[in-house]
Amino acid sequence: MTATAETLELYTRGNADIRDLTPAVSAAVKNSQLQNGIVTVFCPGSTAAVTTIEYEDGALADLRRLLDEMAPPDRDYAHNRRWGDGNGHSHVRAAVLGPSLTVPVVDGRLTLGTWQQIILVDLDTHPRQRKVIIQLLGEGASP
Amino acid sequence: MTATAETLELYTRGNADIRDLTPAVSAAVKNSQLQNGIVTVFCPGSTAAVTTIEYEDGALADLRRLLDEMAPPDRDYAHNRRWGDGNGHSHVRAAVLGPSLTVPVVDGRLTLGTWQQIILVDLDTHPRQRKVIIQLLGEGASP
Amino acid sequence: MTATAETLELYTRGNADIRDLTPAVSAAVKNSQLQNGIVTVFCPGSTAAVTTIEYEDGALADLRRLLDEMAPPDRDYAHNRRWGDGNGHSHVRAAVLGPSLTVPVVDGRLTLGTWQQIILVDLDTHPRQRKVIIQLLGEGASP
Repeated sequence: MTATAETLELYTRGNADIRDLTPAVSAAVKNSQLQNGIVTVFCPGSTAAVTTIEYEDGALADLRRLLDEMAPPDRDYAHNRRWGDGNGHSHVRAAVLGPSLTVPVVDGRLTLGTWQQIILVDLDTHPRQRKVIIQLLGEGASP
Repeated sequence: MTATAETLELYTRGNADIRDLTPAVSAAVKNSQLQNGIVTVFCPGSTAAVTTIEYEDGALADLRRLLDEMAPPDRDYAHNRRWGDGNGHSHVRAAVLGPSLTVPVVDGRLTLGTWQQIILVDLDTHPRQRKVIIQLLGEGASP
Repeated sequence: MTATAETLELYTRGNADIRDLTPAVSAAVKNSQLQNGIVTVFCPGSTAAVTTIEYEDGALADLRRLLDEMAPPDRDYAHNRRWGDGNGHSHVRAAVLGPSLTVPVVDGRLTLGTWQQIILVDLDTHPRQRKVIIQLLGEGASP
């Protein structure tokens, strides 16, 4: 059984900056020699989210518009009234999208579709340094 | 430790066609002899999603209406302007719902509620052949 | 390899009552002596959801408003016409948020952010007794 974790560090610009994590997650799978199991991609923090999308500028712009409509930045938020940090919309967007994604690994490969990438969506209002945990669990290569 | 995966193939009609995966996932749990662990249900592809719902026609119709309101099919999408395939709404819906679900298995049984079913939501605009990965991880039956 | 599960029981008030599960999940990690792996938090039932948020009254109120706008309780639902139980909005909200969350455990600790808590959102229309499954999987302490 393999149980390993890598921590990815990256700088984001905030405001629904969307980053493709697929190369880093693929490399972690290869490094771990995991053959059959799962990889969990998790972002610590309450203003970022992890999901999948076709990573092309059109779909990314469409997702940002949906988030702007679901939780507009320029309205009143109870969080902002209490804490004054102006990121109430970031918190509720992150809660709906969720901070975690689990992808099966079969025969040493992520089971993603051809046009499906793993993304970090940084929903906060300013640039941040983010950590992403890549946790691998399952059976490794036979010795 | 058990680490096994099954691939389910099914034909969907698209346009928020919703399929009940529970019988297939339950059968995979039984086949695997997994006693305590997790099952991850994952759909490769960027225009489908996996979640749970009470699988009855009313709730399914209500979910389709919510998706139509969240991302209407008949508006402008940047994805469509770039690629001309008309499924921009499919991509953003899939990103919000997410492609993955993890359910604990305790004493050989899925821990679903009585009225809770595991569903695949095919959000694309036309019929498709889909694969679903059912990944099982944990402790098997004692020998 | 450690594969253990705890069942948490709690009473909720319904109508988007939001409960902080972090202390219980942290205690389960400590009890299990899991060092490296994952914890899956899952709510059986089709009218509740699990995600993360900064657990403070402002953000919780903002999330409730988003849910009220996404699926208002006081409109027509096909589920209600068929079953008369008045919780059609509960079902679709739960399907969008999802019933499951997976968090990595590294060096014996949940990898949550400082201001990030694991929450149960009870979306049903009345008080309920809920069970939450806390499933732990990975490598335990060295003997």
